[in-house]
Amino acid sequence: MHLDGVSDSFPEIASQLASIAKGFHSRGWLLGTSGNLSAVVQRQPLRLAMSPSGIDKGELAPTQVLTIDDNAHLVSDHAAKPSDESLLHIRIVKERNAGAVLHTHSVWNTMLSDLYASDGGVSIEGYEMLKGLQGVKTHEHIEWLPIIDNSQDMPALAEAIAATLKQQPSAHGFLLKRHGLYSWGDNLAQAKRHIEILEFLLETLGRTLLINNNKR
Amino acid sequence: MHLDGVSDSFPEIASQLASIAKGFHSRGWLLGTSGNLSAVVQRQPLRLAMSPSGIDKGELAPTQVLTIDDNAHLVSDHAAKPSDESLLHIRIVKERNAGAVLHTHSVWNTMLSDLYASDGGVSIEGYEMLKGLQGVKTHEHIEWLPIIDNSQDMPALAEAIAATLKQQPSAHGFLLKRHGLYSWGDNLAQAKRHIEILEFLLETLGRTLLINNNKR
Amino acid sequence: MHLDGVSDSFPEIASQLASIAKGFHSRGWLLGTSGNLSAVVQRQPLRLAMSPSGIDKGELAPTQVLTIDDNAHLVSDHAAKPSDESLLHIRIVKERNAGAVLHTHSVWNTMLSDLYASDGGVSIEGYEMLKGLQGVKTHEHIEWLPIIDNSQDMPALAEAIAATLKQQPSAHGFLLKRHGLYSWGDNLAQAKRHIEILEFLLETLGRTLLINNNKR
Amino acid sequence: MHLDGVSDSFPEIASQLASIAKGFHSRGWLLGTSGNLSAVVQRQPLRLAMSPSGIDKGELAPTQVLTIDDNAHLVSDHAAKPSDESLLHIRIVKERNAGAVLHTHSVWNTMLSDLYASDGGVSIEGYEMLKGLQGVKTHEHIEWLPIIDNSQDMPALAEAIAATLKQQPSAHGFLLKRHGLYSWGDNLAQAKRHIEILEFLLETLGRTLLINNNKR
Repeated sequence: MHLDGVSDSFPEIASQLASIAKGFHSRGWLLGTSGNLSAVVQRQPLRLAMSPSGIDKGELAPTQVLTIDDNAHLVSDHAAKPSDESLLHIRIVKERNAGAVLHTHSVWNTMLSDLYASDGGVSIEGYEMLKGLQGVKTHEHIEWLPIIDNSQDMPALAEAIAATLKQQPSAHGFLLKRHGLYSWGDNLAQAKRHIEILEFLLETLGRTLLINNNKR
Repeated sequence: MHLDGVSDSFPEIASQLASIAKGFHSRGWLLGTSGNLSAVVQRQPLRLAMSPSGIDKGELAPTQVLTIDDNAHLVSDHAAKPSDESLLHIRIVKERNAGAVLHTHSVWNTMLSDLYASDGGVSIEGYEMLKGLQGVKTHEHIEWLPIIDNSQDMPALAEAIAATLKQQPSAHGFLLKRHGLYSWGDNLAQAKRHIEILEFLLETLGRTLLINNNKR
Repeated sequence: MHLDGVSDSFPEIASQLASIAKGFHSRGWLLGTSGNLSAVVQRQPLRLAMSPSGIDKGELAPTQVLTIDDNAHLVSDHAAKPSDESLLHIRIVKERNAGAVLHTHSVWNTMLSDLYASDGGVSIEGYEMLKGLQGVKTHEHIEWLPIIDNSQDMPALAEAIAATLKQQPSAHGFLLKRHGLYSWGDNLAQAKRHIEILEFLLETLGRTLLINNNKR
Repeated sequence: MHLDGVSDSFPEIASQLASIAKGFHSRGWLLGTSGNLSAVVQRQPLRLAMSPSGIDKGELAPTQVLTIDDNAHLVSDHAAKPSDESLLHIRIVKERNAGAVLHTHSVWNTMLSDLYASDGGVSIEGYEMLKGLQGVKTHEHIEWLPIIDNSQDMPALAEAIAATLKQQPSAHGFLLKRHGLYSWGDNLAQAKRHIEILEFLLETLGRTLLINNNKR
């Protein structure tokens, strides 16, 4: 399976979503039906392939992937319902012209979203891994990962996210406090790469915090 | 495989139990034949599909799953014997009208059951992941996870568990001190989701304890 | 595959050894060709199925498993050579009348073998997981895991191990300092169970040491 | 699959590279398209099988593996381009007469390359696992793992690496600061073994740093 395309057909995209879901669940980033995944199928009008609500991501089947419109309504009849966070995916797609959006709940992203909440974000600088973020050419890059307060009011949260994305036009992702990480890309392959890079860097930052007081 | 049903036939339930066992063993939550899994096959009279005692959970075959009655006696002849903790599963099924009960031994649940034993439980609050617990609608929820002293006297332990469950009618699980985590659900899918959510939150709490003294 | 037998034929034993090796390698307990595995094929005269030296344990094929005698010599021609530590396996088989011996190099067993070396061993007490060790009926059991100095002189090391096993007749395993863990059982299933239990408990002890200074 | 050969044909080597890539990605050592892998196909003139740039290492297919010459140019037409770090692989092959070179980005190697950067390297001593490094016969060996400053100037970095390798003729690997680990071997099996050994030892050192202040 190649992960390179907005232009792929829906079955191919659904299969990619299921494969990424299974892999991330195995790493512990989508436990307990948490997290969600989407990819643009069509731009005009917007059609988004979206993981359904309340499904075990380690068991997600391509046939369970839904198609929604830009109001997060199901385009075709389906027994499942779209994730409550579909509005956030749609907003990110629009703000960033993204082709795919992924959202993970890892232990490290949850912890760092809490530890750095009062700073409004996490600054990540000087790591080679930063070059895995689209457009970054050197480890000397400074990535600012904004932290946004968590909320159950999805339209309000979508507004807060849109405002943050406008203020931070070069951010490749953001954290919701004590909730999780969102990242995106031109296509699923790029979005997956961004999640892996950011999860790696957050774990590295977290473990470095721990070890720094204990060195020699 | 879909994990959604008390109404499933025994072969389907046994297959789900084996699949969950394999996955949890792979995560290190059922090492060394520890832990056990059950699901209700029939309510009147009670028939419980139960993992056998002393079996490697990474190798559990559906044909090894036993059927027991509400005295934890085997319903049909079988070379294997039911887990000593079957009485605890039966009691939880009755107290909570549960359709499935899962019990894991992870490093983090063992540690936190010890660290917080003198408090009588662990309080978990403010995490989005709490919404994975049945009936919880917001991250502002406070989950109290009771800790019960460990014992080898199964009838006495069953009584202690029943008393705790009556006192804490909204608890989604409990810890046995230096022993492990019990959770349950209306069906196996929900019980699996609860275990994943609680394991995630216990690891997050444990790592946060560690990091808090070391931040900046 | 069932893991229950000294009486199994060699092909079955070799297949079990390969399966355990693959699983332990995946957990990071046999990285870089480290560790080794054996099982008794015949007692009189002794014939031991033994993993070969210098093989990637994640790739071990049943056909690569060797048969050695009680001098650690190959019984039949084979391109591979037996592990240097074969003498240790043979000695443990004789001292404990074991049916299988497994040796792992995990990060946690390496660390604890170092941290507690000056105490001569690690005491593990009060954990339910202890009941996974053969003959242990309660979590109130105290397991003393002796630590033996590492050496490249295999006959001398075999003597030191034999002396320790005689002094500690109820020990289920031992650590070699900054080297690894040995455990055994009546058969491969039991030896595998003991390794999983001891690895779990060593990780739990190690992480508890870390967290204890940081609690509240 | 056996991992023992420079003399293997290209399809076999490409298949081995893909298999190692998948395994390391699964361990979190090649996240987000990071890292790269190579093996010598022919010495005169030099032909190197090389992982392409920007590919998900968990999805690397043997047909995606490229062949490059000693200027890091593609030998045959291919849609993909070789990794920017190909020059480093070629230099290591020449300096060490290596048959294979592997480069990983793990959380622990990133952290230790940073923590010990001011010392110019990490000293690893007294561990049995050191014997997994080619030519090391005893745990009393001292391995010096040099740390080289990271750079985006590949020809300059290749020179710095060559100078370090000449100064440290017995080093089995090196770290690039906040970037990752390079190791090599006579063939892919040996290079894989070296990476596993060094990753294990770096994690052990890192966790030991953490725990040392907290023991009893």
